[in-house]
Formats: sequence, C-alpha cells, structure tokens
Amino acid sequence: MTVSPAPSAPPALTLYYARGTCALAVRIALEEAGAEYTLARLDFAAQQQRSPEYLAVNPKGRVPALVTETGVLTETPALLAYVAQRFAQARLAPVAPHAFARMQEFHSYLASTVHVAHAHGRRGARWADEPEAIAAMQRKVAPNMVECFELIERHYLQGTWVLGEDYSVSDAYLFTVAGWLQSDGVDIARFPKVQAHHQRMAQRPAVQAALKD
Amino acid sequence: MTVSPAPSAPPALTLYYARGTCALAVRIALEEAGAEYTLARLDFAAQQQRSPEYLAVNPKGRVPALVTETGVLTETPALLAYVAQRFAQARLAPVAPHAFARMQEFHSYLASTVHVAHAHGRRGARWADEPEAIAAMQRKVAPNMVECFELIERHYLQGTWVLGEDYSVSDAYLFTVAGWLQSDGVDIARFPKVQAHHQRMAQRPAVQAALKD
Repeated sequence: MTVSPAPSAPPALTLYYARGTCALAVRIALEEAGAEYTLARLDFAAQQQRSPEYLAVNPKGRVPALVTETGVLTETPALLAYVAQRFAQARLAPVAPHAFARMQEFHSYLASTVHVAHAHGRRGARWADEPEAIAAMQRKVAPNMVECFELIERHYLQGTWVLGEDYSVSDAYLFTVAGWLQSDGVDIARFPKVQAHHQRMAQRPAVQAALKD
Repeated sequence: MTVSPAPSAPPALTLYYARGTCALAVRIALEEAGAEYTLARLDFAAQQQRSPEYLAVNPKGRVPALVTETGVLTETPALLAYVAQRFAQARLAPVAPHAFARMQEFHSYLASTVHVAHAHGRRGARWADEPEAIAAMQRKVAPNMVECFELIERHYLQGTWVLGEDYSVSDAYLFTVAGWLQSDGVDIARFPKVQAHHQRMAQRPAVQAALKD
C-alpha cells in the first residue's frame, strides 16, 4: 500500500500502471493483499509506454507490468493469479484445480473477449489502417459490450461476488472492466447484478485506495 | 487417449473440439498427460457451435470446452493450467508461483493478442459490420502476426521449449498458434526458433495423436 517506499526498505514489487487501464485490477488485488509495492505511473497521453526505458521493462509497451525480485511479469490474468498465490494468506483465489480454473476462465474471457471488444473503440488502429474501418469498429463497441455483459450477468456473476460467496481477484477485474461501460456508451443499469456488484466494490477500502490518484 | 470410450467406464472428461482451432492445444495437453477423454467434434462449417445443444454446454458458442465431473470449463489458458494441475504427475507446468505466472503470461499473450490478431482474418464480423472494414482488417492480419511472432522469437521462446529446458503445456499452445501462420500469409521460416520448435513438436507422439482426424 506504500506509494512512496521508505528508502531503507524498498518494496520488492513495482507495478507499472496507467489510469483507465486494466492495471487497476492488479492494483486493487495488491491493495486487498496488503502488499507493499511501488506504483510507477505511465502517462499514456505522453506515450510514455513507448519510451525506450519502459520497453526495456515490457517490450509490449503496455500495462500492467509487475517487477518482482525474480523478473518482470505482464498480462492481467497472469498477474491476478500471481498476486493471489504470492499473498496466499489473503485468500484472494480458490486453490482447488476446478475452482481455480473457473476463476481463470473468467479472467481469460475478460482479457481476450471483453477487453478486446472495448479496445476496438480506442485502439482500432491495431487492426486496420483506414479511418473508415476504424470508425466502423467504433460503431460496434457498444453492442459488443452489451453482448459480453449480458453473458457476465447471466452466466458468470454467481453470487455476492463473481465466484459466489468468497471475494476474489475476479471481483477486482470485473470492477475494472465494468468501469469502462460508460465511456463505451453502455448504461451499467442494464445489468442489475453487475451494477450492484460495482456499487459493493466501490465501498471496499482497498478499491478506494487503488482509485486514489 | 480414448476417442470412443468403453461403455462400462466412460472417461470423466469430454473435450469439445473443432479442427483448426485453439482446442488443438488442449487436446495435445490431454494426450501428453495420458488422460482418458472423449473427443466431441463440432463442425464449424455446419455451424454446430451455434446449436442449442452446444450452447447449453458453452453459451459462448466457441471451442474448446471441457466437460468435467464438476462442471464445464472453457478458455484455452484456463484449460491448459487445469490439465497440468489435474494430471500433476505428467509435469506439464511449473508449480512455483513466479514460474507458473511466466507460463500464464505467455498463454494470456497468445489468447488476447496473437489469437485476436489472427481472428481478424476470419472473424472480422465480430468487430465491424461493413464489408470494407472487414477487408481492411484482413489486410492487417499478416503484419500483425509478424509483429507478434517477432516478439515470441525474441522474448518468449527461451530454450528447447517455451519455458526453457522443461516441456510444458505452453509448447502445445505455441505449436497450435504457429500452425496458423501459413494460412495468415506468413512464412514460419522468418522465425527460426519458432520453426525449429514447430518441427520438434511435430515429432512428439502426443502431437501426432492429437492431429489424427
């Protein structure tokens, strides 16, 4: 929870972070775990993620990246499971293989379907060069996000928390991605369970700490 | 390895599979694990993945899906870790949190960046309605796959196998995705380490068994 570490004992973990990105999910997980970490902010508007210094940390030029004693780790689903395993006492993920796989399934769906649907609104240039094509992608963001969140509402959000009665890193990830709906032109109120989850999450001290900028 | 199970002892696992998809990675992993499983083939050309029967198994209408004694699991990265954990004696994944996270990072990159880049060649209608936009996406598939595989060649393929000297489920996943390069208009020979890995994989009995159709 230390943003500026004491010089005598620097935290072993540094999270590279940018506002409005999925790195928020990892930051919430670290806060929930009670981890000590340094927050290294990147200004995407200034293209800091493309600087040679940052590309030496993460050659993909994206966030999140987590610097650990044994090397850099990237990709939100990998980092969420890592934080849960490293800070096992915080009980942020199930341990049994099937329950762990259910959690991973949800993270993979968020990363490779929902996040990708969202990214077509801002990062269309990854997948086409022509402005008309990029505009066509933008028009489909809202309907695609609706389809994704209908599935989440119906199929994935199982109880008070994503995985049922136990809070987990999945809740941090859903909170983060659901936070993009408004800017994608979708009213979260269409999904009552997701909306109630979002409101519950916003009450948690760890979430409030992670949202401090 | 049982495609048609003995009626007296049906395998506990059923893999829903379609040719040419990332479900191949999970099939290879099950073969490497020596697992007994039933293979349930879907004909994508006949749109079987959209049938009510299959949507009851996997409401996303995609493969892979793995039916287990305790419920259905989907999403390739989740299934690869699950197979490795369930058949731990096959040693198909590292166990220590950091090494496990490195594996997961690679899987997440394949699922949410590389697979997505490839999908814009065949599934562009997911992200835009206009034929011109879909054609624009198709033009960018080859350069995007080249960029992805340059990163894999330089950054991710660390030794004889993806994770170094130990074979893992990551090798099954890389083999599967690298197998798409040709149809994406990219010569695998541009990536000597990836190509050598592909050839090593093709020699493995489990891979040959998984490719039998």
